[in-house]
Amino acid sequence: MAHAVIPGGAHTYAKGDDQFPEEAPGFIVRGEGCHVWDVDGNEFIEYGMGLRAVSLGHGYAPVVAAAAAEMRNGLNFTRPAALELTAAEKLRRTLGQDDRMVKFAKNGSDVTSAAVKLARAATGRDLVAICGDHPFFSTDDWFIGTTGMPGGIPQAVRDLTVKYRYNDLASVEALIAAYPGRIACLVQEVETTEPPAPGFLAGLRALCDAHGIVLIFDEIITGFRWHVRGASHVHGVRADLTSYGKALGNGFAIAALVGEPELMELGGLRTDRERVFLLSTTYGADTHTLAAAMAVLDVYEQEPVIEHLHRQGRRLAEGVRQAAQAHGIAEFFGVAGRDSNLIYMTKDAEGERSQAFRTLFLQEMIRRGVIAPSFVMSYSHTDADIDRTVEAVDGALAVYAKALSDGVEGYLVGRPVKPVFRPYV
Amino acid sequence: MAHAVIPGGAHTYAKGDDQFPEEAPGFIVRGEGCHVWDVDGNEFIEYGMGLRAVSLGHGYAPVVAAAAAEMRNGLNFTRPAALELTAAEKLRRTLGQDDRMVKFAKNGSDVTSAAVKLARAATGRDLVAICGDHPFFSTDDWFIGTTGMPGGIPQAVRDLTVKYRYNDLASVEALIAAYPGRIACLVQEVETTEPPAPGFLAGLRALCDAHGIVLIFDEIITGFRWHVRGASHVHGVRADLTSYGKALGNGFAIAALVGEPELMELGGLRTDRERVFLLSTTYGADTHTLAAAMAVLDVYEQEPVIEHLHRQGRRLAEGVRQAAQAHGIAEFFGVAGRDSNLIYMTKDAEGERSQAFRTLFLQEMIRRGVIAPSFVMSYSHTDADIDRTVEAVDGALAVYAKALSDGVEGYLVGRPVKPVFRPYV
Repeated sequence: MAHAVIPGGAHTYAKGDDQFPEEAPGFIVRGEGCHVWDVDGNEFIEYGMGLRAVSLGHGYAPVVAAAAAEMRNGLNFTRPAALELTAAEKLRRTLGQDDRMVKFAKNGSDVTSAAVKLARAATGRDLVAICGDHPFFSTDDWFIGTTGMPGGIPQAVRDLTVKYRYNDLASVEALIAAYPGRIACLVQEVETTEPPAPGFLAGLRALCDAHGIVLIFDEIITGFRWHVRGASHVHGVRADLTSYGKALGNGFAIAALVGEPELMELGGLRTDRERVFLLSTTYGADTHTLAAAMAVLDVYEQEPVIEHLHRQGRRLAEGVRQAAQAHGIAEFFGVAGRDSNLIYMTKDAEGERSQAFRTLFLQEMIRRGVIAPSFVMSYSHTDADIDRTVEAVDGALAVYAKALSDGVEGYLVGRPVKPVFRPYV
Repeated sequence: MAHAVIPGGAHTYAKGDDQFPEEAPGFIVRGEGCHVWDVDGNEFIEYGMGLRAVSLGHGYAPVVAAAAAEMRNGLNFTRPAALELTAAEKLRRTLGQDDRMVKFAKNGSDVTSAAVKLARAATGRDLVAICGDHPFFSTDDWFIGTTGMPGGIPQAVRDLTVKYRYNDLASVEALIAAYPGRIACLVQEVETTEPPAPGFLAGLRALCDAHGIVLIFDEIITGFRWHVRGASHVHGVRADLTSYGKALGNGFAIAALVGEPELMELGGLRTDRERVFLLSTTYGADTHTLAAAMAVLDVYEQEPVIEHLHRQGRRLAEGVRQAAQAHGIAEFFGVAGRDSNLIYMTKDAEGERSQAFRTLFLQEMIRRGVIAPSFVMSYSHTDADIDRTVEAVDGALAVYAKALSDGVEGYLVGRPVKPVFRPYV
């Protein structure tokens, strides 16, 4: 009989099939704070945090309570819910963008794709320019067609997305020159692991203004993680349209497009221009996720969430660096990125990026009770969790060091993990 | 200051801006069963039922309880949740499709678009053939580009979708002949208001088999409303890929793609063919919506939901017909569609479809405490609700009859409602 399900965001069936090693726990049955339990009752500290969506913690009580209370009053009606307006006003106030409009949806992909559609409509241009160094913008064809896994996406669609380089203003200028008057928008994250070079973001803004291009920032990951007002605020540059999601809902499915009224109204009713079918979805404004998001914003306003994420990230990064140095492998294993959102890099004995060594590290961490596809912090990661993690890293890197000398194969239980975007299994 | 929000699925800001008349209630604050309350405390019986998503009733206790219990254990993890597999197994068992695979997502649009992508990948063809008589398949470009509101969608994308007619097998054959070897899939609902003509669905199936075309049924509306096994089961024809949603979650955001393993596995890991990035979204399998869906399926299994929907629809349709006849306007106002999912048609004195008369009917129903953009039944519509609705219809049609004689303008408080898909406001 066929397997029943192709599971969700993690691309995995159950064990060791793709991005996790053979030793990975099977299905998860419960999470609390930064801890999860698998079907066999094993407990793990985890650092994936629901693909970075869970910023406060799994089952975070005030958020769950707000959602649970609201859903007793119904979830969505054919007429708009009052809560939709209240939530939009609260969100733009929290972001310091009271002059902007908001449209809610379920996934980050929805809102970033909607931004692209608005940009195409506003400019009358077809081409989308994306930052080729950023990992993910949308499940939709305009983006997936540019990845190493474009199956099922027509060439005519793939041809409409072009790429520039992060921190390389000349590459943006060259693209604009190569496609004069044809680029509708630039799409990028404000920052991933590499900070923006001085003048890069302001340069993007100026180029967009000069050439009538819509600037779109994807703050799905950076929003409510870099700063309560996002990475745009940290770096002092504002896009025309910005997408938020992930941390906004602490795991509840909510995303928001926040943008200039002139652009947003193309999807509304106060425009004389050709209309855009903007994110009119069945569940975009379902009330219990709006209630959850409002509870999340309350926690961010009243408690030092952002500070906590950065502080614990710094503690972990420091512990990891010390462990790597102690084992003499600091040039082969290191962390990078903003403290609230760390990733790690694994290199083999030749100093090349290595999926086999990544698999080994994952495996050894799992054996020590830590699931760490990255080191994404939550408000629930305590000092004790960080200490236990550093201890696990120390143990894992001891094995890593031996594998650098002896070869990794003898230490791996299963086959190496693989990158997400690859054309064949 | 700009308005804060462009609201969700209903396309409306607040009052009378688009699909509802001036008299429509503003924002809704609460729903219970088939009743909703607006910000002023007015109560209405309603027949939109969350854009047809709410099949049991607003705030339906056993479903809300299941979701509330599950969300305390966390919503999504980086590893798959055990519940995802359990829910997939339960869904395919309920559908009588144990040989199929399941992939969960949030909106119906997501899963129907994913079906299109799988079909393109499986066939290596770009063209999508949709049934041009059906109202909605997806918010995504491949569909919206074919509507009267294609703003922001490149011509190159619009050119890849072609249309055939419902119950017109010759139109399908002509399309296949016009684009030999180029059509990846046919996409349609099994049935909307017009029942399938004898042999039409079987003919589609045979044409798809003969020409290597993937047959996709959109059962977002018909699923769990025509029959617990969907309209495909009622009419005895099976598609290769079928999308479900709406009633499946009773308002919770869940949709499911159910399909042939050979096709589904292109998005999985057991294939030698080129892979498809299939619906890997952050929230696709969030546990509390899966728990809600499982509770919904339990209610369908244990209680006569489908029978109730049809019985109440029949009662209402009969009452409406009698009222129209009593007012001598049966040729100007009538209901159509399956009893569980009725719509109504409004004609002017010349016998032409009329938005002005639609507006008048909506207005007069709202004045009598009924919100009825259609007559979509739920398991919470009681005999008393139906009786009260028929009484409202009787009153509304008395005004309708006068407007047919005197002209509609003198009876309308605001401007007429407008169709969704129009290029300009």
